[in-house]
Amino acid sequence: MLLPPRMVPIEDLPTPAVLVDVDVVSRNLGRMAQAARSAGVRLRPHAKTHKVPQVGRMQIAAGAAGLALAKTSEAEVFAAAGFDDIFLAYPVVGKGKPERLLALSEKIRLAVGVDSLDGARALAAPFAAAGRRIEVLLKVDLGTRRVGVFPEAAPAMALRLGEIPGIALRGLFAHAGHAYGENTRTAVEAVGRNEGETLAEVARAVRSAGAPVAEVSVGSTPTARSAMAAAGVTECRPGNFVYHDASQVSLGTCSLEDCALTVIATVVSVPDSSRAVIDAGSKTLSSDPLRPTPGGHGFILGRASRVTRLSEEHGVIETAPGETFTVGERVRVLPNHACVVSNLHDRIHAVREGRVVEVWRVAARGMVE
Amino acid sequence: MLLPPRMVPIEDLPTPAVLVDVDVVSRNLGRMAQAARSAGVRLRPHAKTHKVPQVGRMQIAAGAAGLALAKTSEAEVFAAAGFDDIFLAYPVVGKGKPERLLALSEKIRLAVGVDSLDGARALAAPFAAAGRRIEVLLKVDLGTRRVGVFPEAAPAMALRLGEIPGIALRGLFAHAGHAYGENTRTAVEAVGRNEGETLAEVARAVRSAGAPVAEVSVGSTPTARSAMAAAGVTECRPGNFVYHDASQVSLGTCSLEDCALTVIATVVSVPDSSRAVIDAGSKTLSSDPLRPTPGGHGFILGRASRVTRLSEEHGVIETAPGETFTVGERVRVLPNHACVVSNLHDRIHAVREGRVVEVWRVAARGMVE
Repeated sequence: MLLPPRMVPIEDLPTPAVLVDVDVVSRNLGRMAQAARSAGVRLRPHAKTHKVPQVGRMQIAAGAAGLALAKTSEAEVFAAAGFDDIFLAYPVVGKGKPERLLALSEKIRLAVGVDSLDGARALAAPFAAAGRRIEVLLKVDLGTRRVGVFPEAAPAMALRLGEIPGIALRGLFAHAGHAYGENTRTAVEAVGRNEGETLAEVARAVRSAGAPVAEVSVGSTPTARSAMAAAGVTECRPGNFVYHDASQVSLGTCSLEDCALTVIATVVSVPDSSRAVIDAGSKTLSSDPLRPTPGGHGFILGRASRVTRLSEEHGVIETAPGETFTVGERVRVLPNHACVVSNLHDRIHAVREGRVVEVWRVAARGMVE
Repeated sequence: MLLPPRMVPIEDLPTPAVLVDVDVVSRNLGRMAQAARSAGVRLRPHAKTHKVPQVGRMQIAAGAAGLALAKTSEAEVFAAAGFDDIFLAYPVVGKGKPERLLALSEKIRLAVGVDSLDGARALAAPFAAAGRRIEVLLKVDLGTRRVGVFPEAAPAMALRLGEIPGIALRGLFAHAGHAYGENTRTAVEAVGRNEGETLAEVARAVRSAGAPVAEVSVGSTPTARSAMAAAGVTECRPGNFVYHDASQVSLGTCSLEDCALTVIATVVSVPDSSRAVIDAGSKTLSSDPLRPTPGGHGFILGRASRVTRLSEEHGVIETAPGETFTVGERVRVLPNHACVVSNLHDRIHAVREGRVVEVWRVAARGMVE
């Protein structure tokens, strides 16, 4: 493992290597921050996309109020890196986790997602024992069918959460994961009604029932701009927008020029004219499918050919008519899903104008606990 | 990140956690070593499945002649850990790699895969300049359609490889990756003719043409036993057999009791009676499909329910009729593909009789170069 010195031209990097264009990141951050300011909501980017404290600091500098993460160990990494306002947008349940969150909450402003009374009681126990309270947001399922209570169940659940010693209800949160739903033409079509409007309506029902809702927090890059514009929304938590990827291009969320993360790979084999193989397989690109409609495992920039088949160390390119590849040639691949690429790599090469300006350690990579 | 002390009961581990049962590993290693001894071939396990030097040492102790790996950086890690006979079963091409392999070859017995003259010339250049030769094995494609020359092209290619300064042809290698082919009933059906017999036949043709073939090396866990038994085969390189996984069970290669690697996870949400969500998603289990026929993302041991949908931190279980899950409950998941699970995690909990006996660092995790 050689750490490339700064200002190495990307042509000299050993492959495969993950590159992030810092100018594109800055532009993506600036645009989303501007959208949030215009809508009058707080921006709390989900840092799972990058897992890199340096990028988190760029987000805060661009105007983010704090970060969202999913797992306790991720929050521990980011808190240790100096981040002081973290929301774990995940129903954290499991042995040892409440105690770790209690310790974290003594250092930073922390909130945690909940969607069940059993989960909330377990979470709250050490806080109550310490005479403290953990701020929680109730997850509302607006169609993803993953975690969260159905909208009609939110008022009763919010009231019961408020009765648990050690719990302080900060508000509600939702995530339009179904915006990535397979075989839908666009994110808007997949989601149907504006998630911001729907969650704001749920918030009104919860307040009418007598529970406090200070935060109404929506998520998802494809729906962020429309959802944050809805009256009553106070916070937005998109993640992927910092890098974007082939799925966002396919969903129509952004253009190719807005994609910051690419993989540089070498053609290692050209067995026949219909096929070329690169040294980036699922260990580099992940086997996540293209969204919303599956279609290979990455765009090759400047080419019509695509990576159509992956094994761990092989990316098989189906050669498009009129194109050729040669052994030793280097290509740039735009992966299907940037977040999972971050999680596969220990380091990311931050580049500007074709040169490596910094090597970022993916400090929260592999933090699954 | 807390490293659990030794002898922790697995019930006390924070989740998700990857467990490997060392007794099952020992049994798997012993059986394959016995099969290789009976067949009179050298066993060279592909270490990509575990990426853990401790497991590699168990393999050598059980009778393996050396290890197979794919990438230069993996070989560097294993050589630094004391392994002295490594075959990179991959057509290594790319800037800086031949020089790194030259340095490696000064410390260990090394061989590298090739499948093109351009690749071989680039690989050989620094060896020739140093007055040395790198041993290579020519990859023959027996149906996987990934890398490798077609069988009929092998004799001419072998002769031309022999003319390249810095190259010494050790033999031929193949891998029955198509044994995992989708929608085939069994590995044998997918592969058709015995790959060992076919490769031995290619070896005879290459020798008839006048090129030396000392090694005839076959691979793949599902086909290992039949392929190594073919006359003329000298080496076998199965990888997955050390751990096995749900795909091997589905292929009929092994039974559930032969699976060493499992993931312990916690149920974090039970939104309704048809669905439960665990804290192990694609960041823990990978999004690799079940082979040979896709069918969810992991078996839940002792249950009929399966993980049917994944996002990064969520595994959605479709609850089978008559089964229930409760928030906070712990489950054991048998993943679709053990190799990619190893690559996602920094450490593996080696367990025996329900207790952690050692924590292994996955030293070659993420080594994509």
